[in-house]
Amino acid sequence: MQYHQNGFRTGDPRIEPALAERHIDKGVVDVLIVGCGPAGLTLATQLSAFPDIITRIVDRKSGPLQVGQADGIACRSMEMFEAFGFAEKVAREAYWVNETTFWRPVEGHGDIVRADRIQDVEDGLSEFPHTILSQARVHDFYLETMRNSASRLVPDYDRKLVDLTITDDPHHPVTATLEQLRDGEEPAKEQVKARYVVGCDGAHSAVRHLLGYDLQGEAARQLWGVMDVLAVTDFPDIRLKCALQSASAGSLLIIPREGGFMVRLYIELDELVGDERASDRNVSEQVLIEKAQSILRPYTLSVKEVAWWSAYEIGQRICDSFDDVPEAEKQTRSPRIFIAGDACHTHSPKAGQGMNVSMADTFNLGWKLASVVRGHAQPKLLQTYSSERQAKARELIDFDKDMARLFSTRQETSVAAEFQRYFAKHARYTAGVETRYDPSIITGSGQYQDLAQGFQTGMRFHSAPVIRLADAKPVHLAHTIKADGRWRLFAFAGEGDAGEPGGAISGLMEFLLNNPVSPLRRPETENEDVEAFLDVRAVFQQHHRTLSLTYMPELLLPETGRYGLIDYEKIFCPVVKNDHDIFDLRSINRRSGALVIVRPDQYVAHVLPLDATHELSEFFLGFA
Amino acid sequence: MQYHQNGFRTGDPRIEPALAERHIDKGVVDVLIVGCGPAGLTLATQLSAFPDIITRIVDRKSGPLQVGQADGIACRSMEMFEAFGFAEKVAREAYWVNETTFWRPVEGHGDIVRADRIQDVEDGLSEFPHTILSQARVHDFYLETMRNSASRLVPDYDRKLVDLTITDDPHHPVTATLEQLRDGEEPAKEQVKARYVVGCDGAHSAVRHLLGYDLQGEAARQLWGVMDVLAVTDFPDIRLKCALQSASAGSLLIIPREGGFMVRLYIELDELVGDERASDRNVSEQVLIEKAQSILRPYTLSVKEVAWWSAYEIGQRICDSFDDVPEAEKQTRSPRIFIAGDACHTHSPKAGQGMNVSMADTFNLGWKLASVVRGHAQPKLLQTYSSERQAKARELIDFDKDMARLFSTRQETSVAAEFQRYFAKHARYTAGVETRYDPSIITGSGQYQDLAQGFQTGMRFHSAPVIRLADAKPVHLAHTIKADGRWRLFAFAGEGDAGEPGGAISGLMEFLLNNPVSPLRRPETENEDVEAFLDVRAVFQQHHRTLSLTYMPELLLPETGRYGLIDYEKIFCPVVKNDHDIFDLRSINRRSGALVIVRPDQYVAHVLPLDATHELSEFFLGFA
Repeated sequence: MQYHQNGFRTGDPRIEPALAERHIDKGVVDVLIVGCGPAGLTLATQLSAFPDIITRIVDRKSGPLQVGQADGIACRSMEMFEAFGFAEKVAREAYWVNETTFWRPVEGHGDIVRADRIQDVEDGLSEFPHTILSQARVHDFYLETMRNSASRLVPDYDRKLVDLTITDDPHHPVTATLEQLRDGEEPAKEQVKARYVVGCDGAHSAVRHLLGYDLQGEAARQLWGVMDVLAVTDFPDIRLKCALQSASAGSLLIIPREGGFMVRLYIELDELVGDERASDRNVSEQVLIEKAQSILRPYTLSVKEVAWWSAYEIGQRICDSFDDVPEAEKQTRSPRIFIAGDACHTHSPKAGQGMNVSMADTFNLGWKLASVVRGHAQPKLLQTYSSERQAKARELIDFDKDMARLFSTRQETSVAAEFQRYFAKHARYTAGVETRYDPSIITGSGQYQDLAQGFQTGMRFHSAPVIRLADAKPVHLAHTIKADGRWRLFAFAGEGDAGEPGGAISGLMEFLLNNPVSPLRRPETENEDVEAFLDVRAVFQQHHRTLSLTYMPELLLPETGRYGLIDYEKIFCPVVKNDHDIFDLRSINRRSGALVIVRPDQYVAHVLPLDATHELSEFFLGFA
Repeated sequence: MQYHQNGFRTGDPRIEPALAERHIDKGVVDVLIVGCGPAGLTLATQLSAFPDIITRIVDRKSGPLQVGQADGIACRSMEMFEAFGFAEKVAREAYWVNETTFWRPVEGHGDIVRADRIQDVEDGLSEFPHTILSQARVHDFYLETMRNSASRLVPDYDRKLVDLTITDDPHHPVTATLEQLRDGEEPAKEQVKARYVVGCDGAHSAVRHLLGYDLQGEAARQLWGVMDVLAVTDFPDIRLKCALQSASAGSLLIIPREGGFMVRLYIELDELVGDERASDRNVSEQVLIEKAQSILRPYTLSVKEVAWWSAYEIGQRICDSFDDVPEAEKQTRSPRIFIAGDACHTHSPKAGQGMNVSMADTFNLGWKLASVVRGHAQPKLLQTYSSERQAKARELIDFDKDMARLFSTRQETSVAAEFQRYFAKHARYTAGVETRYDPSIITGSGQYQDLAQGFQTGMRFHSAPVIRLADAKPVHLAHTIKADGRWRLFAFAGEGDAGEPGGAISGLMEFLLNNPVSPLRRPETENEDVEAFLDVRAVFQQHHRTLSLTYMPELLLPETGRYGLIDYEKIFCPVVKNDHDIFDLRSINRRSGALVIVRPDQYVAHVLPLDATHELSEFFLGFA
């Protein structure tokens, strides 16, 4: 954390100074977010980092979520939480999924036995664990971060979206009509003019309905129950994630929950017939408990309290587009209205992906909206949201169908074994780190990928430990990437380069600082911090005790803030203990070094040679 | 963190449910704490964990500390913060002292050069870093923890202690008279009857004055200045802890501060002559800046803002006793009034010990007071506070004198080198982990020390990583020790023991649960949790994938809370990757195993054979 750069300030550094009193007209906003679920709150928290953007977030509900719903948090989401500053709060409070066990019937007599046990996340996949925590607590951390931002953003509850129209207002072309729900009174109507509207309003999205879009796909007919319980059992793996397939009573997935006592059970129920809906089956707590008991036999399960329960059908459905621009008009206009999360894709909860993918949607959209609203990027950047995220949602649905099919198939040893193999193989996928965006205006083709094989173009920037030169602190390199909307350049020095004049690092920094075509030389950086658009850091190969600060290029020891204080957190060295050298871990070409361009959402945009200043300029000119 | 054991509860689990509305008479309390510094807040936070204890904490000041004063946080204090639940908040916000450098003049021309560089904390000394953070923020974390406790304890500011008398009230024998300070009005007098009063009211302690005690020792005559600055410099080690000794301009200690920009400078000034006081010298910001500039030459220092500054004399002074019982009366009565922190010992700030030792004082006293007030221990336990902490304060003063002498000695290469050796050698001491309490009613003699050489009797329980059996989570064993006033038994199993009936672990657990002389069988555990006094855990030698939960003794899978839910967090296995096996790291006898008794303040009280049930009983009968 860096603070005090503009003068010493008492109190909690995570609470940004509030802006000087400003009157915000809530009827005219840059971005209107509809819905306070994981997608909406991720977006609102991202936008709250920019007090020059007027954001409003509304929800039909009358207050924050208290119980139930999603709970799985993939490693990748933890990485994103780190960028928002609350990963360690989640890690402290959550259950950690360390291992998964698989139980199957013994052939012959049918009692379940533990068939296998695997590590849930392979070593080195992420510096964060796979965790389980109530969605309500994740919401709380977002709400706290928004509230502590310079924008002091808080949601407006009890607001229902009833209409959206596009007007010819050149600045705020979308007019949203909201109804303010009031106890025992007629709802009050309110109009909000917005530059952009984002529907994060769930499976029954009003924004999607108003766009006239449908979710495409089949409603599967398999009924499942889910419940969070406090229970006493002699089943030995009750504190491990377990997939159980009984001989004749069906399947059960056990997800231990935070706090050491609660556990979530996903319970297979019957197939629905014809037009039947989940609600037709009269599923009750008692039905779910008895079913779980029969699957767990010969172990006992005595449920003491049901904290939450639900029954649902598995259905995989998706929208063709996640924004308001029809295919035919993509060349002529940029989107104004977006949908994200459950509003545009639904799937079964058992792979633990729902909340994660929804948050990833708006983490993708957030920086793009901020860049365009602030004039740091061209509006066409916004088209990449739908193209990138719709493709990922489609992949998820395919994954989920396979998974659900395997899970629901009548138990046979061969299928169970297949499920188990599939499950293990796709651990990376469910960890959220397999997402790879296709080449586009913001993602390179991978032409120079061999310079840094461990930073795959289009995939998340895979962190590794390094030592910060100035204070010898062990840090994770990717944790320098805050959710502040900035692009990053990580310059990995070639062998022997110590930043001295004449070397490749020095040459690159000189180009970046002074060349007219440098991506740092931008209109918006004229009157503010030179790195307002692009944050530059370097990693050298030398041991931190042999590398000297003294001859480093100016851009790696930049002056910052009102006093011109030096920022000492730009230069890093490898961790030499324990074989943790980042050049080895990420297969960086030691001879030539490499330049890695990272998007504000932590995805690798490009890998270039250190001297490829032309390609570097061209890349940013493509959209910024 | 364990929660939900008495039923699912929404919201932040760190905020304890408030007690049902109770009327607290602030005029009649169990413990009155005078002073809201580190000693007072550590004690108040400890006592706030027990809602059955009525605690009041008052301060002359009108609100929480905002700036300045202490900033060094030793590893040992971080371990204590972990027990209070906020170590990770400090770690996130603080500067980490990773390395220390030493600068001395080049013989001949006199410019300073870096003479050496050492790792600040040796590998494996603690799982926490040595950190630097404003005392004000440490106070904030304590205040937050108190406020979130079931007691909802908050300080009463603007209260000045003016009198203390001992009455013959059998229950609340101390009467304190407070003046409530009010703007422009006569102070209002208030009487508070207390069972115990603790003076944490600093070097000018009113409690100490009212006890008639003096600080003994010499006021040293060396004047020092200290300032927190935002500055621009070309001195390359400005973000490292540095000890500089210039050829003729004196000495300087650089302590980088949290946030990446601020730095604290300790600057040697002149010796005081005769009756002269620090205030006679007209030290100013400007004097300190110029002096620092001359010591740093040939490097430049341009100070942009001084956040705080002060000038002080080094003085090492101490009280003979830290409680109100004269030596002659120790056999006949137990203490009622205590003093802690600067109220009973003062020393120079440069070893970074002041805040740490003050907090350690009341972390030692807190659980003892709680035990006696709650009837879990005999009042004579309270005598061990003064005997244990006075001895440690005396050691600190000796250490500080040596350190100050070396620091202030005119620079000669030989002395500088001696300082450097001394500094390195005493890194463990300044990390706070060398404290060793003498044998007493609560600390054994070390008779069976060879069973676990890595858990030295009288010293802090040195944590090591383990795997929790039930959920395969990697955890630190000492992090199971919360600041809840409970004693701990860690049973390390012998080779081959898997907890099965007939084994040593099973025998010990059977004794603890059922034998009439077990320390678990106590009046206060009749109607509450069997482990209200003593928390029992076991560490086995097997890999966590081979050890079975199924045959574990009842006490290692105890029923807890209103539902009798099973506590799965009692059983641990070694970390087999990376040579981190706790049996090796702490030299535990693999053949026989060992039983380690740990005090509520995390100090090792005793090491015993697993079958030494007689000694175990006798030990607790000695005071409880």
